[in-house]
Amino acid sequence: MRSDRGDGKLKVIPLGGLGEIGKNMTIIRYGDEMIMIDAGLMFPENDMLGIDLVIPDISYVLENKHCLKAIILTHGHEDHIGALPYILKKLTVPVYGTRLTLGILAGRLKEDGVECRGLRAVSSGEIVMIGCFSVGFIRVNHSIPDSVGLSIKTPVGMIVHTGDFKLDHTPIDGKMTDFRRFADLGQRGVLLLMADSTNAEKEGHTPSEKTVGVAFNRVFQSAPGRIVVATFSSNVHRIQQAIDTAVRYRRRVAILGRSMVNVVNTSLELGYLHAPEGTIIDVEEIRNYPANKIVIITTGSQGEPMSALTRMSMSDHRQVDIIPGDTVVISATPIPGNEKLVAKTVDNLLRLGANVIHRREEGIHVSGHAARDELRLIHNLIKPKFFMPVHGELHHLFAHARLAEEMGMNRENILVGENGSVFEFTRDSAKLSGRINAGVIMVDGLGVGDVGNIVLRDRRQLSQDGILIVVVPLNRASGRVASNPDIVSRGFVYVRESEHLMDEARGRVLQVMRRCRDEQITDWLSIKTSIRDALTQFLFEQTRRRPMILPIIVEV
Amino acid sequence: MRSDRGDGKLKVIPLGGLGEIGKNMTIIRYGDEMIMIDAGLMFPENDMLGIDLVIPDISYVLENKHCLKAIILTHGHEDHIGALPYILKKLTVPVYGTRLTLGILAGRLKEDGVECRGLRAVSSGEIVMIGCFSVGFIRVNHSIPDSVGLSIKTPVGMIVHTGDFKLDHTPIDGKMTDFRRFADLGQRGVLLLMADSTNAEKEGHTPSEKTVGVAFNRVFQSAPGRIVVATFSSNVHRIQQAIDTAVRYRRRVAILGRSMVNVVNTSLELGYLHAPEGTIIDVEEIRNYPANKIVIITTGSQGEPMSALTRMSMSDHRQVDIIPGDTVVISATPIPGNEKLVAKTVDNLLRLGANVIHRREEGIHVSGHAARDELRLIHNLIKPKFFMPVHGELHHLFAHARLAEEMGMNRENILVGENGSVFEFTRDSAKLSGRINAGVIMVDGLGVGDVGNIVLRDRRQLSQDGILIVVVPLNRASGRVASNPDIVSRGFVYVRESEHLMDEARGRVLQVMRRCRDEQITDWLSIKTSIRDALTQFLFEQTRRRPMILPIIVEV
Repeated sequence: MRSDRGDGKLKVIPLGGLGEIGKNMTIIRYGDEMIMIDAGLMFPENDMLGIDLVIPDISYVLENKHCLKAIILTHGHEDHIGALPYILKKLTVPVYGTRLTLGILAGRLKEDGVECRGLRAVSSGEIVMIGCFSVGFIRVNHSIPDSVGLSIKTPVGMIVHTGDFKLDHTPIDGKMTDFRRFADLGQRGVLLLMADSTNAEKEGHTPSEKTVGVAFNRVFQSAPGRIVVATFSSNVHRIQQAIDTAVRYRRRVAILGRSMVNVVNTSLELGYLHAPEGTIIDVEEIRNYPANKIVIITTGSQGEPMSALTRMSMSDHRQVDIIPGDTVVISATPIPGNEKLVAKTVDNLLRLGANVIHRREEGIHVSGHAARDELRLIHNLIKPKFFMPVHGELHHLFAHARLAEEMGMNRENILVGENGSVFEFTRDSAKLSGRINAGVIMVDGLGVGDVGNIVLRDRRQLSQDGILIVVVPLNRASGRVASNPDIVSRGFVYVRESEHLMDEARGRVLQVMRRCRDEQITDWLSIKTSIRDALTQFLFEQTRRRPMILPIIVEV
Repeated sequence: MRSDRGDGKLKVIPLGGLGEIGKNMTIIRYGDEMIMIDAGLMFPENDMLGIDLVIPDISYVLENKHCLKAIILTHGHEDHIGALPYILKKLTVPVYGTRLTLGILAGRLKEDGVECRGLRAVSSGEIVMIGCFSVGFIRVNHSIPDSVGLSIKTPVGMIVHTGDFKLDHTPIDGKMTDFRRFADLGQRGVLLLMADSTNAEKEGHTPSEKTVGVAFNRVFQSAPGRIVVATFSSNVHRIQQAIDTAVRYRRRVAILGRSMVNVVNTSLELGYLHAPEGTIIDVEEIRNYPANKIVIITTGSQGEPMSALTRMSMSDHRQVDIIPGDTVVISATPIPGNEKLVAKTVDNLLRLGANVIHRREEGIHVSGHAARDELRLIHNLIKPKFFMPVHGELHHLFAHARLAEEMGMNRENILVGENGSVFEFTRDSAKLSGRINAGVIMVDGLGVGDVGNIVLRDRRQLSQDGILIVVVPLNRASGRVASNPDIVSRGFVYVRESEHLMDEARGRVLQVMRRCRDEQITDWLSIKTSIRDALTQFLFEQTRRRPMILPIIVEV
């Protein structure tokens, strides 16, 4: 009998997405069978200097490779699929997702040269048997089409995972969150609800995506020249609305930015995006139309330094110059940490004479995540025995936990976890049974995980005060300094204006060397330490800076 | 006759605060007499690595030192007074400000060991003759007491500068913005209005400071244990409300954080802050009271790494540990760029079991700047001939300019400037007449302006990919490599795990040296360039990283 396998315990192990927005990943394990839900990346924290991106630490998964039956994806956002190009190099396992999700993933894998023949497309409404689990895909609304929540029937009970979702009563494609399925599941009994907490601090109901179309219409109606719309490339419904509004005002549409072009092409191919023949033109054709007949849809809504919009704002784009009369709509809000980049882009666009529409109050953006009223509805539909808030920083998770408590749930049945928490469930109990390693893997260029804390600590010191390299030529025979020490600095002071300081520093090194000789210290490590200490102290006194000091002794 | 001096032209030159929030500074000049309004600092941009703070470039002022008659301060915030410790080392000039402003300034100057005997306290309502200017101090509400706007009567006409302001109809100290004075000035005719644009994108009216007291009362009423209130140390009215609410609930108040202690002491001394005898206790005395009889007022509302609240959140504070049952109120909103720091602090506090109240919706913070309805009132009161939006990023200035236009002002009479713009006024004309240098001076430790673009560029490269130092011992006689080149790296890869890569890199260096010898290249600069190029290419191929390569040749 199936349910006899294993120790009769169900384990739920979040490996990412708890205590952070990003790199979502959850392991569901029963006996020796496990599945992974989502495998996302995160952008580096400010103090992770030089790091390109961050993925979850999957050492637990690698150690239990043989148990992993499948990876299940809820939707195609980077924070849900972005780790796969790295993970699929180490794991051979089928990946389930809806068509658009897999279409976007396939593009990413191809770019990274990763082969994966295990992509298995499913449709919402479908149920798939994977080992002892039966996984159902439930349609939800989100800021990317073809998003799903999951029902995971386990030998111990039913888990419902909402994925990222909102409840949009007027979705662009007419396809609403499958309330009935959620209600059915609730009716039949749910052991554990795992639900999106991103907007758990926002009261009310997140506005419908359709409200953005109304704002677009208002802008398009009166814009005197070209219209540039910047948004997330994955927000296909948003792009659809920009195209629809362009068509309404007989404007042609050019698509700009690598990821925007990719997603638009994939979505057109797969039928998630529609545009009348001839609407979409090549960016080179813009010049063939009057300004008030053009819309440009572009990347760069986060002020990303290399993006098309940022380049335009700096008059540095190969094909498009911003000119007075242009209207730029930034259809997004800055992700925390990007506020300054976005503000700088807006300022640069204004300087070029564009009219810039960027404030949320102007209705040109709505969130893709459920606010508190929507969360309340989901909790009431599902009526779970246990609840685990997911997808959010700790304050989001706590806010969501409080909401559940306010709705009458017992505090003991609410499980606020962290990445690496191991929760164990039976049919009627849940407990935190342990912790596994669930740190971060940093990706820097081609290196995955080769930059660790020592390298980062060095980068931080180098970034703050630079480095001083002291080359001491030592006479092999006599053990004496053969010539004046050479000091080279980078990122410390502008040397040409600090010759005096450098001369004095050289003097300090000679002092140290003399003292070492007098005290008959010949051990290089001790000599280097003495040089480092003396210079660190001297330079701090003189400049209040602490550059890295790197003594190099060369025998001559 | 006074007004005959000079060329009959009035110059207004913003040196800081336009196109940015921070380092406010404006020069008003007529003939050979000029005054400076405010002298603020700004926190460094993200890409200014290792920089402590930024002040305006005052080379124009230094070149025209003999013309500078006074510095006039509008209030005691860092972005209005913070450059003075640096500037007053180079300029001997009287500084006018209200008592609290000068009190705070005096503390800052003392800390920095700067002597200034030219501090001249004025009261709002006063008018002071300075050269050909007559400067009036007008009371305004702001998030620090004793703030003033300015009326500056010049030979060419009246300038009104609002300073930072809001219109609070129920201010904590009962002292309202001096509407009547503004109305009088408007009645008599104003040439130029310079007005705060910080909230020019916010519709409506900024709520009264008093509303925060209502929120405090709600929190204090029900908090089961200690209450920790974090806010800006300069927000004396906020501190007053926290103290008042503490007194209402018979709680004692401890003050934490260096700047908080400084400002509270100064404000108590000068009578801007009031607390019944015995209310304020030393932090060491906390343990003598039950938890529900304690309030701690602290710095750290911005998640600043070294602040008291951040230390507490990391269980790293010498005197106070956060314990379950504590309520922490973060009475501030994150300044753009600080969102992540604040979120991290909140999460750490939650992890320790505190209840954290931090969302603006909870009413625990209001802005100190006028929103659009307040700006409209000021424009209507002043009815200026010309208008210059100040204090804001470009998008704020543009929004403020549009507001003025919507109110019926001619577009030509609205002057949107940038730092360094020189505006020239006669009695009935205004024009942009030129530009002067108005960059930034970066302060790093004791160095003021000694870190420039080259040093920053190096720090950026070092921060991203670290450094590789290649020491090549060259035989003086033969010109041949005397022994294997030594490679030392920092912040590049973890060397112990990359021995193979380093071996190969050494091989590349030897190749280059052989080629140089074969091609009889002996010029050290050329050899170094060849090494740098070869290694840069090799390492990029291998790692997709571009560390700084620093070849050092040592003759042996």
